[in-house]
Amino acid sequence: MTSTILAPSAGVRSEHDLLGDRDVPADAYWGVHTLRAVENFPITGQPLSRNGHLVRGLAAVKLAAARANRELGLLDPERGDAIEAACREILDGRLGEQFVVDVIQGGAGTSSNMNANEVIANRALELLGREKGDYAALHPNDHVNLSQSTNDVYPTAVRVATVAGIEELLTALHRLESAFAEKAAEFRTVVKMGRTQLQDAVPMTLGQEFGTYAVTIGEDRERLRDASALIHEINLGATAIGTGLNAPAGYAEAACRHLADITGLPLVTSPDLIEATQDMGAFVHLSGVLKRVAVKLSKICNDLRLLSSGPRAGLAEITLPAVQSGSSIMPGKINPVIPEVVNQVAFEVIGNDVTITLAAEGGQLQLNAFEPVIVHSLQKSITHLAAACGTLTDRCVRGITANAERLREGVEQSIGLVTALNPHVGYAAATQIAQEALASGRGVAELVLERGLLTAERLEELLQPERLANLTA
Amino acid sequence: MTSTILAPSAGVRSEHDLLGDRDVPADAYWGVHTLRAVENFPITGQPLSRNGHLVRGLAAVKLAAARANRELGLLDPERGDAIEAACREILDGRLGEQFVVDVIQGGAGTSSNMNANEVIANRALELLGREKGDYAALHPNDHVNLSQSTNDVYPTAVRVATVAGIEELLTALHRLESAFAEKAAEFRTVVKMGRTQLQDAVPMTLGQEFGTYAVTIGEDRERLRDASALIHEINLGATAIGTGLNAPAGYAEAACRHLADITGLPLVTSPDLIEATQDMGAFVHLSGVLKRVAVKLSKICNDLRLLSSGPRAGLAEITLPAVQSGSSIMPGKINPVIPEVVNQVAFEVIGNDVTITLAAEGGQLQLNAFEPVIVHSLQKSITHLAAACGTLTDRCVRGITANAERLREGVEQSIGLVTALNPHVGYAAATQIAQEALASGRGVAELVLERGLLTAERLEELLQPERLANLTA
Amino acid sequence: MTSTILAPSAGVRSEHDLLGDRDVPADAYWGVHTLRAVENFPITGQPLSRNGHLVRGLAAVKLAAARANRELGLLDPERGDAIEAACREILDGRLGEQFVVDVIQGGAGTSSNMNANEVIANRALELLGREKGDYAALHPNDHVNLSQSTNDVYPTAVRVATVAGIEELLTALHRLESAFAEKAAEFRTVVKMGRTQLQDAVPMTLGQEFGTYAVTIGEDRERLRDASALIHEINLGATAIGTGLNAPAGYAEAACRHLADITGLPLVTSPDLIEATQDMGAFVHLSGVLKRVAVKLSKICNDLRLLSSGPRAGLAEITLPAVQSGSSIMPGKINPVIPEVVNQVAFEVIGNDVTITLAAEGGQLQLNAFEPVIVHSLQKSITHLAAACGTLTDRCVRGITANAERLREGVEQSIGLVTALNPHVGYAAATQIAQEALASGRGVAELVLERGLLTAERLEELLQPERLANLTA
Amino acid sequence: MTSTILAPSAGVRSEHDLLGDRDVPADAYWGVHTLRAVENFPITGQPLSRNGHLVRGLAAVKLAAARANRELGLLDPERGDAIEAACREILDGRLGEQFVVDVIQGGAGTSSNMNANEVIANRALELLGREKGDYAALHPNDHVNLSQSTNDVYPTAVRVATVAGIEELLTALHRLESAFAEKAAEFRTVVKMGRTQLQDAVPMTLGQEFGTYAVTIGEDRERLRDASALIHEINLGATAIGTGLNAPAGYAEAACRHLADITGLPLVTSPDLIEATQDMGAFVHLSGVLKRVAVKLSKICNDLRLLSSGPRAGLAEITLPAVQSGSSIMPGKINPVIPEVVNQVAFEVIGNDVTITLAAEGGQLQLNAFEPVIVHSLQKSITHLAAACGTLTDRCVRGITANAERLREGVEQSIGLVTALNPHVGYAAATQIAQEALASGRGVAELVLERGLLTAERLEELLQPERLANLTA
Repeated sequence: MTSTILAPSAGVRSEHDLLGDRDVPADAYWGVHTLRAVENFPITGQPLSRNGHLVRGLAAVKLAAARANRELGLLDPERGDAIEAACREILDGRLGEQFVVDVIQGGAGTSSNMNANEVIANRALELLGREKGDYAALHPNDHVNLSQSTNDVYPTAVRVATVAGIEELLTALHRLESAFAEKAAEFRTVVKMGRTQLQDAVPMTLGQEFGTYAVTIGEDRERLRDASALIHEINLGATAIGTGLNAPAGYAEAACRHLADITGLPLVTSPDLIEATQDMGAFVHLSGVLKRVAVKLSKICNDLRLLSSGPRAGLAEITLPAVQSGSSIMPGKINPVIPEVVNQVAFEVIGNDVTITLAAEGGQLQLNAFEPVIVHSLQKSITHLAAACGTLTDRCVRGITANAERLREGVEQSIGLVTALNPHVGYAAATQIAQEALASGRGVAELVLERGLLTAERLEELLQPERLANLTA
Repeated sequence: MTSTILAPSAGVRSEHDLLGDRDVPADAYWGVHTLRAVENFPITGQPLSRNGHLVRGLAAVKLAAARANRELGLLDPERGDAIEAACREILDGRLGEQFVVDVIQGGAGTSSNMNANEVIANRALELLGREKGDYAALHPNDHVNLSQSTNDVYPTAVRVATVAGIEELLTALHRLESAFAEKAAEFRTVVKMGRTQLQDAVPMTLGQEFGTYAVTIGEDRERLRDASALIHEINLGATAIGTGLNAPAGYAEAACRHLADITGLPLVTSPDLIEATQDMGAFVHLSGVLKRVAVKLSKICNDLRLLSSGPRAGLAEITLPAVQSGSSIMPGKINPVIPEVVNQVAFEVIGNDVTITLAAEGGQLQLNAFEPVIVHSLQKSITHLAAACGTLTDRCVRGITANAERLREGVEQSIGLVTALNPHVGYAAATQIAQEALASGRGVAELVLERGLLTAERLEELLQPERLANLTA
Repeated sequence: MTSTILAPSAGVRSEHDLLGDRDVPADAYWGVHTLRAVENFPITGQPLSRNGHLVRGLAAVKLAAARANRELGLLDPERGDAIEAACREILDGRLGEQFVVDVIQGGAGTSSNMNANEVIANRALELLGREKGDYAALHPNDHVNLSQSTNDVYPTAVRVATVAGIEELLTALHRLESAFAEKAAEFRTVVKMGRTQLQDAVPMTLGQEFGTYAVTIGEDRERLRDASALIHEINLGATAIGTGLNAPAGYAEAACRHLADITGLPLVTSPDLIEATQDMGAFVHLSGVLKRVAVKLSKICNDLRLLSSGPRAGLAEITLPAVQSGSSIMPGKINPVIPEVVNQVAFEVIGNDVTITLAAEGGQLQLNAFEPVIVHSLQKSITHLAAACGTLTDRCVRGITANAERLREGVEQSIGLVTALNPHVGYAAATQIAQEALASGRGVAELVLERGLLTAERLEELLQPERLANLTA
Repeated sequence: MTSTILAPSAGVRSEHDLLGDRDVPADAYWGVHTLRAVENFPITGQPLSRNGHLVRGLAAVKLAAARANRELGLLDPERGDAIEAACREILDGRLGEQFVVDVIQGGAGTSSNMNANEVIANRALELLGREKGDYAALHPNDHVNLSQSTNDVYPTAVRVATVAGIEELLTALHRLESAFAEKAAEFRTVVKMGRTQLQDAVPMTLGQEFGTYAVTIGEDRERLRDASALIHEINLGATAIGTGLNAPAGYAEAACRHLADITGLPLVTSPDLIEATQDMGAFVHLSGVLKRVAVKLSKICNDLRLLSSGPRAGLAEITLPAVQSGSSIMPGKINPVIPEVVNQVAFEVIGNDVTITLAAEGGQLQLNAFEPVIVHSLQKSITHLAAACGTLTDRCVRGITANAERLREGVEQSIGLVTALNPHVGYAAATQIAQEALASGRGVAELVLERGLLTAERLEELLQPERLANLTA
């Protein structure tokens, strides 16, 4: 990364900052602030450009700010037009590779913001027919960053980016929910033993089992939507610490209005900008909900792996579609690799939540300096969960088949049927039958009949699996 | 614990279960199932009686079930009256010490449920003028547990208990919010330097700083109330796995109605009882919100400790009330012990969230066997947070005083004032002034005047602290 | 707690501290500092007395300090004798109930140390024939705490206590290891299918499976012993921040020597007392190792629950001993409640590790103020793990039986046998056989013979289960 | 990723596996198994090639296996030479881009192993003058994977890779330790106030403060070296589940010997291969130690940020080197961006530890299917920590300067000096002086003299800062 940056192919230009002069590649849209950040933070090797939603979020905020500044008479039309055009290019997916600072960075996002300011300024200069670096004509701070601070730009851009990511995840969850719902319908009459604590309990249907997966994912979508709503509240106009210093009257309102227009999102300005500038609560909350989603997905995948265990010495109640050979040594072995990768993503999301929690707790006074690692962790959680849901839907759930015969056998041989007799023979008598069935290997029904506790007709009626599973409900 | 239980003071009675006969103390209201659980789970030494809300929650559920059973003609009036009377005694705070199983237990809560069944049965037997243990007359399973399973009783009781705990926490948070709001009003005009990344930034007021604490806690209360609403959905009537086996038609509706009446809570029956019986989502969610609260409280306490550092070689912006001597060796030392204990509770809550996450992820198929540790962890988080808020409010926040003179000095000597000149002299010129001020130890104002960048009148106007802090807003 | 403390049964005495005068119960050995701490920290309701190892650790340190002070001529024999006698009483288990401060407390342990200083001073005063509270004669700070600070006393006492707890855990782990080793011997020739990713893999024996549990616990014991060794390094003599202020030359050496003598532990003084006073590294490390132990135990218990699933519709390879009825509604149901409680303890330990991590990370400059929650969390992890191992050993592992017939059937019907033919027929041909076996329900052996790939004799030899399991190794 | 793979530039070749035929790009060294894995796991977008140590680790294992197979007469010289040559190319850094499977993958590493098998086979075929895909001549499974299973290859390669990463981290930690030690020497006589609980305590030197950072990092290096030693134990020869099925007698010993020779590492074969194949203990342990390192680094960086707070309204005891402009709005602001990025890496490592813990806990029976996410998380923790140490050393610690005058003032005005008078005037009298100093703003020394408690000479002697700091020690 660094070497590429320091070995430009087409000459250099000199830029100046607080620390002195530095050469940057002549063809780079980024400038000296970005250069120093790249040198300071050689951590993950993953540049900001990897987070496309955030790059576009920054451009959207810059565009909204430019419009607000112009509306308030702070920015002349010529510079304003150039800045807007540059921002629109980024929103259209261009210049992404110019966002080169590392995703994990010190400085509370300042380097991300300055990377954006510099790229936009230099592209705007080009559009104005000037040289890159001619900051006297159009300045990254004085014009692109006008009325702004990293401390309101970055959190706002992050929110816009996060909402976009969440939408993708919601779509992926919805597809997964539908896939489970379809399987639930397909398996509606497939009777099986329900299990509690891994021990045979009472009958149910495979449709009911898969139906719970659809229901639980549906609940998660609702919670995720609630959490997403919380991050529609932005602090643009807060500037450095929320007091709005250097942002003129009307700016916060105008910038929010323009940003809502640009993004199509129902954004609102936080009622307390000082609190909003330091607070990571909405991100902690969102991460907590992502963790909830991860926990549910992991539980479901644990179940799928368990129910498909076998093929001979396992439960073998369902069969997952084969998507690759399972073993380099065991021929013909098929493994539940798709649920396994989902489990791993879930574990990662749970770990990310701890990272986010620590970073949020570490905020001090008027700012949280650790927002970049919060953003990076959230972005991974969201995108990896969406990807995991996608592969789970398409390469696993849709192709699951039921081993109906084996499932019905499990019910018929079951001792758990005795539970249904509880109200008719009492807990104590039922317990004795269960114990004898277990010890002798015999069936519950024959023992009940042998003891004359119920007539055959009554017994058959009580033990009818579909009735036990409450299938008509 | 065990020794007390096995060394009864007043003779024994024999009870029978699946595993055979066992003596229990004659005066114990609990029976053989409880005895075995006490022996099986000698883990924490903390009996269920430590969780008063849960004990009462179990009694409320048993009372609601008895009423529903009676309404449906399943329970005769005599036994029904006795069971109801026993439940009401527990709700009134009696018999609590009879809940002796360990708070961490295997079996998904079965031992807690059986402890309740046995205590209620034996107390009801007494009220009927019979001997404890005369289960032919009134049976823990056949009568007290009628139409029920641990798997619907326990989660429902836990929800009722948790809602009660949350209410206490909400009250404690509200008191803390008010205390901060009062301080914000008191400190409304106390100007100080705001800080980002621990570096001097731009002016604000101490009132604004404390106001954010009130605002942020207010937000947390809203989120907590949302999360609490989610646990008003219960699965009573689900029985073993949610299919409602052995619960008659109408039971779920009646039991929920009675429980809502008994508890005064707007409880509703879950639309999918199979999902509700296995799902820990609402608890994971609630714990995530408690973690959010903990993160915020910890951040606030970090700030309070930092702002009160000193008394001479620290920031010394505020003074916390002295509540105890700080040191066994350093005379006169006063430490921020109250914020420190709140930090520690926050760390505990964050750890509890991980415990709850693991337990929820470990659920399998139709049940989560690990609900007891989820309940125990939640209960600790809720009660310790409420206690922490209480001591923080009463022994710290209410007594905080401002060191106004020192605070104003900080603003007047500040280099950060130069930010306000940005729109008037430009970022580059402002940067040079800041650098020179830092290097020379001189003030920003004199350097600006020396360079003739602004008139004295204009400068005074621009640097007026109250204006900078946006105090009139 | 507070009410008990403030409602003494036998009059009061007045004590004085930095904040003024307060009445304490006349019969209390603790004094005004303890009183204020009890009032300040009403968090968990669990007094320090619940941590017996720590109470004794404090007494041991006080005794060692008294001997060192006497040796160095700082403490006169009369007071020295009285202090030593009081400490010995605590070491013998008396006065434990006088340690009343909450286990979670602000102040870096000062309240625990002052509780000890006050109890020892007042008991020593009694032994000298004086009134409790007559501190002019023998003072909690000037005499009992002589040459000491909370910041060296408390960490040292915690280390002594922790080592004692670890020894109990090591014993419990050793017993569990032995129980598994015995089962491994018992099941040495019981052939079964090994599984990878829950899919049938290749044969092994149940003895090998249980043998790995013994081996893995043995490794954990070694790691735990290594970690325990790290906490034998103490900072007694460091006083407030490690510079040894107010501790005379020779004191650190003498106090460590006496403490080693009193405890029988090979304690050493840290080579850098400033670092040792602020560093929580050894506790973080120890907690990490406890987490490792927890992860292993949880994995083993997951396996035990899975292998014993059934009795009819599960793997049913082993049977766990029945220790209680499993269900309030399902007669005869037996659940794996002992492994389940171990899982829950493991989840708690993993959560505690996060708490400890956060508390350690939060230390600032010359001290970590959050050591009490570290100590409380460690103590829970250690004692609950030891208790869990105990019940797992005695109420589960020792009584496990094998269902040998079912296990052998699993091998004989297995497709995984084909792996053994790999070197003889090649991966591609073996894959075809596996696929056909799975599709047709037929056996691997008959398909190989049908295709004439191997002779019957050779095949029998290759597929001999004991050979496949490498049983002779 | 997928699209690139499916849009080859130079035609295709057809390959066959369990699931049927698929085209792969003609110029790809990877084959059908890799293709399916790429399609199945589109999770992170980060290919295995990003983990260079692991790619080389796989090549080293394959090379060792080939040599062992040849030594045992299982592999002919021609194929053996070709495989060895291909492996050496990878070890030399070539073909890295052919490792295209996602770093997070289902299947316990099978896809990583098959990716290696296919690349090596096809490169070996090329070297033999054959076409890629001509597996009849040299087969990925039958020849490259001979005597092996993913379940011994992958864990072994991971260990080799991890040891290499740890070595880099140890070097980075050593450089950081040295930088702190140099600063400790530079600041040896700079007196300052020590602080406990952020309150002024007793004097020390800045050299002592920085010395503790060096010492603590030195301890961490030792612990990390211990943990690294544990992962030198490998399970090569275990094959599928540790029984060594299909690996001939002598193979495990020979393969380990060759791998030790190739890597230069003192590797040993685990004494219990079944346990070693399923056990993640050493990785959990290592991650726990990495977490310890992270906690320490984070604490140190918290201190550096606090001590350098200001420049005017903070502690301002030290100055960190300026490495970039701090703010897009506040001119001249310099932020502690390097410590901030280290904090964030530490938070990530702590989160990774939770991920690893969950993945380890989720292992079942004879294998842990989640090793890929363990490996990915460990690799991030190790490389990001090393990078963070590097930038902390070079861009922060080496350039730190002391503000000696301010530091000495802090001592001279301090009330904490009174602690030194404790042994001479008693705790109670010293407390009164401290209280009066605080209330009046006066100095400790003048109050002591005013009260005639000590002579001026004696007082000066007792309060000599260097003596108080125990500087001569």
